[in-house]
Amino acid sequence: MTLGEIAQLVNGRLRGPADVLISGPVSSGSKNEGGIAFAETAEYLAKAEDSGAAALLLPLDIESASKPFIQVENPRAAFMVLLKHAERPLPLAPGIHPTAVVHPSAEVHPSARVGPYAVIEVGARIGEDCRIYPFAYIGEDCELADDCVVFPHAVLYQNVSLGRGTIIHAGAVLGADGFGYVWDGEKRIKVPQIGSVVLGENCEVGALTAIDRGTVDATEIGDGTKLDNLVQVAHNVRIGKHGAVAAQVGLAGSATLGDRVMMAGQSGVGDHVTIVSDVAVAARGAAIQDITEPGEYIGTPARPSAEGKRSMLLFFKLPELFARLRKLERRLGE
Amino acid sequence: MTLGEIAQLVNGRLRGPADVLISGPVSSGSKNEGGIAFAETAEYLAKAEDSGAAALLLPLDIESASKPFIQVENPRAAFMVLLKHAERPLPLAPGIHPTAVVHPSAEVHPSARVGPYAVIEVGARIGEDCRIYPFAYIGEDCELADDCVVFPHAVLYQNVSLGRGTIIHAGAVLGADGFGYVWDGEKRIKVPQIGSVVLGENCEVGALTAIDRGTVDATEIGDGTKLDNLVQVAHNVRIGKHGAVAAQVGLAGSATLGDRVMMAGQSGVGDHVTIVSDVAVAARGAAIQDITEPGEYIGTPARPSAEGKRSMLLFFKLPELFARLRKLERRLGE
Amino acid sequence: MTLGEIAQLVNGRLRGPADVLISGPVSSGSKNEGGIAFAETAEYLAKAEDSGAAALLLPLDIESASKPFIQVENPRAAFMVLLKHAERPLPLAPGIHPTAVVHPSAEVHPSARVGPYAVIEVGARIGEDCRIYPFAYIGEDCELADDCVVFPHAVLYQNVSLGRGTIIHAGAVLGADGFGYVWDGEKRIKVPQIGSVVLGENCEVGALTAIDRGTVDATEIGDGTKLDNLVQVAHNVRIGKHGAVAAQVGLAGSATLGDRVMMAGQSGVGDHVTIVSDVAVAARGAAIQDITEPGEYIGTPARPSAEGKRSMLLFFKLPELFARLRKLERRLGE
Repeated sequence: MTLGEIAQLVNGRLRGPADVLISGPVSSGSKNEGGIAFAETAEYLAKAEDSGAAALLLPLDIESASKPFIQVENPRAAFMVLLKHAERPLPLAPGIHPTAVVHPSAEVHPSARVGPYAVIEVGARIGEDCRIYPFAYIGEDCELADDCVVFPHAVLYQNVSLGRGTIIHAGAVLGADGFGYVWDGEKRIKVPQIGSVVLGENCEVGALTAIDRGTVDATEIGDGTKLDNLVQVAHNVRIGKHGAVAAQVGLAGSATLGDRVMMAGQSGVGDHVTIVSDVAVAARGAAIQDITEPGEYIGTPARPSAEGKRSMLLFFKLPELFARLRKLERRLGE
Repeated sequence: MTLGEIAQLVNGRLRGPADVLISGPVSSGSKNEGGIAFAETAEYLAKAEDSGAAALLLPLDIESASKPFIQVENPRAAFMVLLKHAERPLPLAPGIHPTAVVHPSAEVHPSARVGPYAVIEVGARIGEDCRIYPFAYIGEDCELADDCVVFPHAVLYQNVSLGRGTIIHAGAVLGADGFGYVWDGEKRIKVPQIGSVVLGENCEVGALTAIDRGTVDATEIGDGTKLDNLVQVAHNVRIGKHGAVAAQVGLAGSATLGDRVMMAGQSGVGDHVTIVSDVAVAARGAAIQDITEPGEYIGTPARPSAEGKRSMLLFFKLPELFARLRKLERRLGE
Repeated sequence: MTLGEIAQLVNGRLRGPADVLISGPVSSGSKNEGGIAFAETAEYLAKAEDSGAAALLLPLDIESASKPFIQVENPRAAFMVLLKHAERPLPLAPGIHPTAVVHPSAEVHPSARVGPYAVIEVGARIGEDCRIYPFAYIGEDCELADDCVVFPHAVLYQNVSLGRGTIIHAGAVLGADGFGYVWDGEKRIKVPQIGSVVLGENCEVGALTAIDRGTVDATEIGDGTKLDNLVQVAHNVRIGKHGAVAAQVGLAGSATLGDRVMMAGQSGVGDHVTIVSDVAVAARGAAIQDITEPGEYIGTPARPSAEGKRSMLLFFKLPELFARLRKLERRLGE
């Protein structure tokens, strides 16, 4: 695209030659030449001017730059428009690839695409415009609403249902047996896991994330909730709407999270623990007791952020603390 | 099934109409209508009476309820019987699917089932009644005893052997190279990993769990030991019998665990650390030194539970502690 | 091989019968009989003499042993030679397996091997002697330099490039979307992720490790850097050369690691955190602020090792500390 075409696309004011060819959006620190970056402040402008970018997206109050630029109300939003424009789905031909194994009882909408070596089992239903990539396994009685995407190698066991527009990344496993055993005095007896997994609309499940099916009911994830990579969601977990669960988080059996809960990287929630809506748990935080008030939490066990941070800082003052205590003891010993 | 048929199945005393149709087992908190839940105490009875369940499994000493019920000696055990009855394996047709790639030198028992697009390599042996799901990769010289189940997308490299009745969940990887390198002053030189992986009978390996092969000997997991999802078992690890390793646990190279060791979620064991039998490590605990006495351990590094918990509680009193110390210092300064 | 042939292979001095048949290299603690182990010290010699090994590799200064042995300058290095000799790649027939789906626009070097059910997408390029195992998915425009190995079930989305000799283990996922969303007041809007993943030469990526593609630029991993299993590498991360990242480590978005950085098991780096070259972070350590000096770090947040260890030791003395403080308070209260 030319810079002029980009100015039109983002509905901005062009300050430079319209015919410069732009390779695509780049970061403000990129060494790649020929792209367009955005900057919202003078500080980022300086960084972007030093970068390989050929042109910039700037706010209305920045009037000059050492590179051609486009002025817009919201450079970040305009950049998102460019990203969206540059995005290109993984290739997938229309129709059902001849090597896909689709059970005769499965219903695949004619507009859906099914890639090579996908397997769609007994009674599964695939909605409009779904994209099922190579090696995906869609198990018995799974239901995919319209516009779902299942990336290569994702596995859905039985009775997994995905709401409209939900995306499952490569290697994710939904519906495996929960970790349930009864100790009989000598060995563990497996508790059969016969429940399901239900994801709402517009969810996203990261690569290599595991969501076990419920023991008898469903493991549930609400509309708009996003899970990152390598997350563990144990059986009977319930997550509300619009949550965000970062990479390597572990949610133990029957944990219940309200709406808009944010779990930062490597954090965890203990089994049967309930967390109300609008809670954020910091990286590595471990909620092992119920959290009943919205807010930010940190530490193991997770505490309100201000309190937890104070203790974490003082932790590294323990040597000083012991020294001071010893001094007092000596003085009093005198 | 009708309630009367269920009463017969669990050998219980029917207290209500025999002809009520029951959809299946449900949890005592389920909103789904028409199922049967169990309750062992008055507290759970109240919860189950409020639920959507159409009928209940109750102990002999509870004589009345607001819903039809069945009295049994052990409601939990009776519920297990219902779960077992309702369980249904992932579908898999008898025989070897025509798209499976089975090397001529591999031996597959005629009663075993091999799904579409499974690959069974040179010299592998698959025992009676094994179930090999789509996209499973059974590498060279692997040996599966009878009744093993390998779910979709599991990967067994070379020389992996599974004892009778062992289950491998989707996406698990057994037998990848251990993380072994020698630093030559400039770069890491890979130490060839030529060992094997040996699992005992009735083991279960969760989805997306990795068990590396030994450097020269075997990485070993004893009979009846269960691993949850996303667990890391490094090369040369040895785990005894009837252990339980929860999700996202990491066992570093050459760690050795005795029998019946329980590792809770996100806990870890350091390299070359030995843990005796009958130890339980709490969630997030990190055993970085040998544990020589049975019991419960907690924290990083893992300590006996009582001791560790006391320190964890006091951790959040550090601000108070510093304040009290300062007060003393001031008084003495006067 | 016979012991005599082994002595020739490692260029050592045979002290025992040349015609003993040796099954292969074994550990010095192995119960398996018939192999050859190495020992560098008297202590390990004693252990190896007690093992099932039929012969030993010993240093020049050990002159006698209870088993046949070979004297060499460096027993460990000689053992590496034996490992290398005993190593055998996962089987993979020459050429492209007829079930592999290779897009007509992809370029596969005639010397490369492509296994059953591999998928190679639009515009991908596969270099000399590459080994692409069953079920591997090589996405659009990926570039594999010579001698790369992609194990079963690994997934490369679009625009992933691998330097010469790089190895990707089973189930690893490279190039999935980074975890990027913008909160619009009601829900999360996905930020399109259009960047790439670039790995240098001689990298190794463990089983079930996830490396997300950059938002607009590349997620980069330098020459010779090794990642273990179940590692999370978020979008826009940059790792330098010859690093080592152990299992279950999480590197958050835009984290930047210098050369030769070692991250021990279950450790982490926060988003946008920069770590200079020659830093080692201990197991479970969490670098949530920049690390500007080479050295060893430990704890959460990560501190220089000596300081962090002192605090960790004192942590378990907190009960004692409180008791001593209380005693002082009482005395002063008198």
